[in-house]
Amino acid sequence: MELPESIKQLVENFERFQGIGGKSALRMALAMSNWGGSEIHSFATSVSALNDLGKCSECGFFADENICAVCSDEGRVGSGVLCVVENITDFLALEQSGQFDGVYHILGGVLSPLMGIGPNELNLDLLSARVKKYQFESVILAINPSVEGDATCSYIKDILPEGVRVQRIGFGVPIGGSLEYLDTLTIAKALENRTLL
Amino acid sequence: MELPESIKQLVENFERFQGIGGKSALRMALAMSNWGGSEIHSFATSVSALNDLGKCSECGFFADENICAVCSDEGRVGSGVLCVVENITDFLALEQSGQFDGVYHILGGVLSPLMGIGPNELNLDLLSARVKKYQFESVILAINPSVEGDATCSYIKDILPEGVRVQRIGFGVPIGGSLEYLDTLTIAKALENRTLL
Repeated sequence: MELPESIKQLVENFERFQGIGGKSALRMALAMSNWGGSEIHSFATSVSALNDLGKCSECGFFADENICAVCSDEGRVGSGVLCVVENITDFLALEQSGQFDGVYHILGGVLSPLMGIGPNELNLDLLSARVKKYQFESVILAINPSVEGDATCSYIKDILPEGVRVQRIGFGVPIGGSLEYLDTLTIAKALENRTLL
Repeated sequence: MELPESIKQLVENFERFQGIGGKSALRMALAMSNWGGSEIHSFATSVSALNDLGKCSECGFFADENICAVCSDEGRVGSGVLCVVENITDFLALEQSGQFDGVYHILGGVLSPLMGIGPNELNLDLLSARVKKYQFESVILAINPSVEGDATCSYIKDILPEGVRVQRIGFGVPIGGSLEYLDTLTIAKALENRTLL
């Protein structure tokens, strides 16, 4: 028994998302086949609307105008601090913490030669240009800890202008975490990053 | 920092799927924002195509014509056996097993007064009409074991014409399963359904 072509195509589309396998994709497509006409129309419209989505020419976040709300905020640009993040999700996580009042720069990933991601695949060219243009004094690398992340941080430090203070976010035991359940690498980092009371 | 309206709408749409929460929906929407124009167009088209999806007037499965491939197969209709399933996924699971050569009847759920699902919400009216029309001798209830499923089976047995043999699929230890890890209800069913060697 063959499924209709439209369901098969929808399943193929859903399977493209990370973490969604064949069974979940089929379940989602079948669930949608029970949606009403207006719900299906609203979904199709919101998908199509993605084509009109602009990106901020400064940081790479979404923007209706040429520049996003953060990058057009003079107070934030004037803070002199630029925070480099891997992707939009990390941008949102930092922004939701409410602990950072500078501007961001979204790389779009980390250097990963094995996956074919070199400096040209990332939003790196613009980074040093922005640091020079706005004379940022400090760059915070909010890049996740991994071999690729570490390499990306070294690379960024090398391409940034002399005299800029480059810092990386701190690593250690997360709040609410327990040493008992943490991996040895995290514990090693926590010991290394100990602070005087 | 606000997300663009199109992303927010997409997140809302993804959240409607069972098992997809706010974080997953956001991740999916952000992943889509990196898709190319043609990929977005193909997704939107396959969503819109759902509006044209027809249902089989006999069993309730998808059908391009008025009647699906199974219900229009005279050999299968002539087998005299009708299998009642809860939904399309169960239909597909049985069909993939290749062990059933009769026709199906998709209820669209099980009776669940607490959830507001009564006989009128299910595809039940057509069931006894079909059994009479095609003179099915045997009805197999392939309805999953649960309180609601059991009640639905009793209800169906009552509304079916006299003389029709109504059977329910067997319950017990699944193949590859181990008594050690099974719940007591399944073990009780397995003992109850023991067969002579």
